[in-house]
Amino acid sequence: MRRPVITLLTDFGHRDPYVASMKGVILSLCPEAQVVDISHEVPKFDVRAGALILAQAAPWFPDGTVHVGVVDPGVGTARRAIVVVSRRFSFVGPDNGLLMLAAMRDGLRAVYAIERADLMLERVSRTFHGRDIFAPVAARIASGLDPSEVGPEITDYVVPSFAEPRLEGPVALGEVMYIDGFGNIITNLPEDFLAQLGASEGSELAIRLGGRELRVRLRSAYGEARPGELLALIDSWGMLEVAVSLGSAAERLGVKPGERVEVRLTGR
Amino acid sequence: MRRPVITLLTDFGHRDPYVASMKGVILSLCPEAQVVDISHEVPKFDVRAGALILAQAAPWFPDGTVHVGVVDPGVGTARRAIVVVSRRFSFVGPDNGLLMLAAMRDGLRAVYAIERADLMLERVSRTFHGRDIFAPVAARIASGLDPSEVGPEITDYVVPSFAEPRLEGPVALGEVMYIDGFGNIITNLPEDFLAQLGASEGSELAIRLGGRELRVRLRSAYGEARPGELLALIDSWGMLEVAVSLGSAAERLGVKPGERVEVRLTGR
Amino acid sequence: MRRPVITLLTDFGHRDPYVASMKGVILSLCPEAQVVDISHEVPKFDVRAGALILAQAAPWFPDGTVHVGVVDPGVGTARRAIVVVSRRFSFVGPDNGLLMLAAMRDGLRAVYAIERADLMLERVSRTFHGRDIFAPVAARIASGLDPSEVGPEITDYVVPSFAEPRLEGPVALGEVMYIDGFGNIITNLPEDFLAQLGASEGSELAIRLGGRELRVRLRSAYGEARPGELLALIDSWGMLEVAVSLGSAAERLGVKPGERVEVRLTGR
Repeated sequence: MRRPVITLLTDFGHRDPYVASMKGVILSLCPEAQVVDISHEVPKFDVRAGALILAQAAPWFPDGTVHVGVVDPGVGTARRAIVVVSRRFSFVGPDNGLLMLAAMRDGLRAVYAIERADLMLERVSRTFHGRDIFAPVAARIASGLDPSEVGPEITDYVVPSFAEPRLEGPVALGEVMYIDGFGNIITNLPEDFLAQLGASEGSELAIRLGGRELRVRLRSAYGEARPGELLALIDSWGMLEVAVSLGSAAERLGVKPGERVEVRLTGR
Repeated sequence: MRRPVITLLTDFGHRDPYVASMKGVILSLCPEAQVVDISHEVPKFDVRAGALILAQAAPWFPDGTVHVGVVDPGVGTARRAIVVVSRRFSFVGPDNGLLMLAAMRDGLRAVYAIERADLMLERVSRTFHGRDIFAPVAARIASGLDPSEVGPEITDYVVPSFAEPRLEGPVALGEVMYIDGFGNIITNLPEDFLAQLGASEGSELAIRLGGRELRVRLRSAYGEARPGELLALIDSWGMLEVAVSLGSAAERLGVKPGERVEVRLTGR
Repeated sequence: MRRPVITLLTDFGHRDPYVASMKGVILSLCPEAQVVDISHEVPKFDVRAGALILAQAAPWFPDGTVHVGVVDPGVGTARRAIVVVSRRFSFVGPDNGLLMLAAMRDGLRAVYAIERADLMLERVSRTFHGRDIFAPVAARIASGLDPSEVGPEITDYVVPSFAEPRLEGPVALGEVMYIDGFGNIITNLPEDFLAQLGASEGSELAIRLGGRELRVRLRSAYGEARPGELLALIDSWGMLEVAVSLGSAAERLGVKPGERVEVRLTGR
C-alpha cells in the first residue's frame, strides 16, 4: 500500500521546536505517514509568499497528498480553520487565503470549516493551531477520514487576491510575483503572453522594472548568457523571469516583490 | 508494525555533511527507521538552548521514540556518552545535561553510560561522536536493543541547572528562557503563577524586563492586539510570553535569553 | 524489503519550492523511497564545495543508495545529464564534476549519459533539470531500473580538479579545502602526511596560513584546548584541521577555502 504523504509549509523557521512538534503529532496519529517539508522559511506572516510557494510545489506530489499550510497571523482569533478539497489533494490550514491559490490551480472541489473538537488535540492552545488542530486533522485525513467529516461546508472562504497580468496592445503589464533564493525575479507574466507579444527565443525585450528600462534577450537557459549578463527567460514556474547568469538579478536591480513590470518587444 | 522513530537535534547547521552522515549511519543499521529533524540550528555549543528545544518538542512524539541530541563541546574528552530512559522515550547523547530536561519532564527512569564498543562504529573518531557513537547506538535501540545493554547504569550524570521562577507576594520573578524565531520572548514563568497573581485574560500586567517597566495586557491570541502592539500571553510552551503582534518583541525591546523578568498585576 | 534511499544535495536553499518539487516527483514515481537531504545550502553555483560535501556524506549511506546532486550553473546548455555508477552507489546529476569526487572515492565503475526521454518528465524545462530529469531518473533507478538503461556509456565525463597536497622534505603543502559551519578550517592534508612528518598527539606544529605562521599543538579533541585556544587535529574528515576551542578559527584567522597551507614540525 502507498504510504500517505503529508507536506508542511510554515513560516516557523528551522531553529525552534514548532515544526518538530507538528511532526510528532502527525506520527503519533498516523505512524505510516511520509512527512515532507515544502518550506519553513516563508517570510514571517507573509501569506501571499506562502501561497505562491505552496502553489508551485504542490502539483508535483502524488494524488491524495495532504498539504498542511501554517502562515497564520490570525491564530486564535475568529478566523476559521479549514480543509480544502481539490481535484487531487486535500489542504489543511487557516482560512486566510494561504491554501486557495494551490487548490484553485488544481481544481477546487469544496471547503470545510474544521469544527469537530474530537479531531483536534485534547487541549487546544490559542497560539499554535498548527500543532493542536491542523496536524491532527491532516493525520486523520491521511489515515482515511473523509474531509467532509471535519465540519460544515462553507462558501465564504477567503480568496487571496493576486494582481492579474494583462496585455494592452504591444505591452504586457504585470508585477514581480516572487524573488527566489538565487535572486531570480519571477513575474506574473505567463509564457503565452510572451508568445502573444510575438517574442521568441533570441528576441530583445524592453522591460520596465524598478524605475529603469532594461534591454535583455529572451533566452532559454541561464547558461546561454555570459556570466554576469542580464537575461530574460520562461522559467520553471512557467513565467517570465529576469535573471543574471551566475548572479542575483534582484540584488543587481534592487527589485522587490509587488513591483510593477512592463514588457514589450523592441523588434530587434 | 509501527516504524521506529528517531529524532535528531544538533548544533551542526544545514550546510555541512554532518547531519546527513548521522542519517546514513542510522539507515544503514536500522533501514526501517523514520528519522525526523527536531532542530539543527541550536546556537553552537549552547547546551541550555538545545535542552529547552528538545524538552519542548519531544513530548509530542509517539511512545518509544529515540531522541538523539548532539550539542557537544566536550566531544572526545572525558565526558561520557549516555542513554537516558524516561517513561515514554529513550535519549542518546553526551552527558552534559542536554538530554535531562526532556527526560525529567517525561519521568526519568535510568541513565546508562555507553561503553560497549561493539555497538559503535568500528572506528570511533574523537571529534564526531554523533556519527560514530550516538547514531549507531540510537539505531540499535530503535531496532530493539534494550538501553540497559549499552553499559553500566550511572547515577552521577550531569543535571542542567535552570533558574527556578518564584513568587514573592504579588510579584512573579523569573527570567527570559528562550527567544524564538518570531522574536517572541518566552519566560520561565508558568501559567499557574499568573493565576496565583490573580491575572486573567484582559488583565494589565507591569513587566520589568531589559531595564524598562512595560504595561501590557494579558491576551489569549496574538491577533487580539493591534499590529505592532506589545502583548503578553500564555503561549504554546505553557509559559508567560511577551510578544509584538506581527512583529518581534525581542528586537523591539533588545532582550536576550537569561535576562531577569518581574511581573505584577497593576489592578487595572 | 529495505526501502530504497535517495539523497538530495543542491544549492537551492530551504525557502523556495524547488527541493519539494523534486521530492514530489520522486514520491510520485517511487512511493516507497526514503528521501534524505544531504544539504541544500551548498553555496550557489559552487560545484567544488558541493562535491566535497557529497563525498564526505555519501559513504555513510547504505549500499544501493541513489545520490542526486544538483549544483548546476550549466542547466539547459550542452552539458550532459549523467548517471555515475560506483562500487556501492548510483549518482545522478549534471556532468560538471559534482558527482565524481564521491564516486571516485567509492570506486568508479561506469558513467552513462541520460538520453532516454521516456525516463524524464513529459515536459522538460531548460531551467530545472533537478525536477524534470534527475528526480525522475533517480526514482526509476531506486525502483530497479538498471543505470545502464538511461543512455550510452561515456568516458569523456568531467573530472573535477582538486589541488593535490604534497610533501617536500619536512614540509606538508596543501590548501584549505572547506570551512564548516563551526568555522573549522579543514585542509586537504591527510592524516598519514602528519605521521610522515613525525607528528603525533601533543606535537607542536608550525602552520603557515593566511599570511601568518601559527604555532599550535596537535590535539585529539576540541575540548583538550582551553576555550578560545587555537588547535590542530585530525578531524572527522580524516584531514588536518585548524580549529578554535568553542570558537571559529575561520573568523579568527580570516581564512577562506582555496588558501595555501604549509605545515612542519617545530620539534618542540
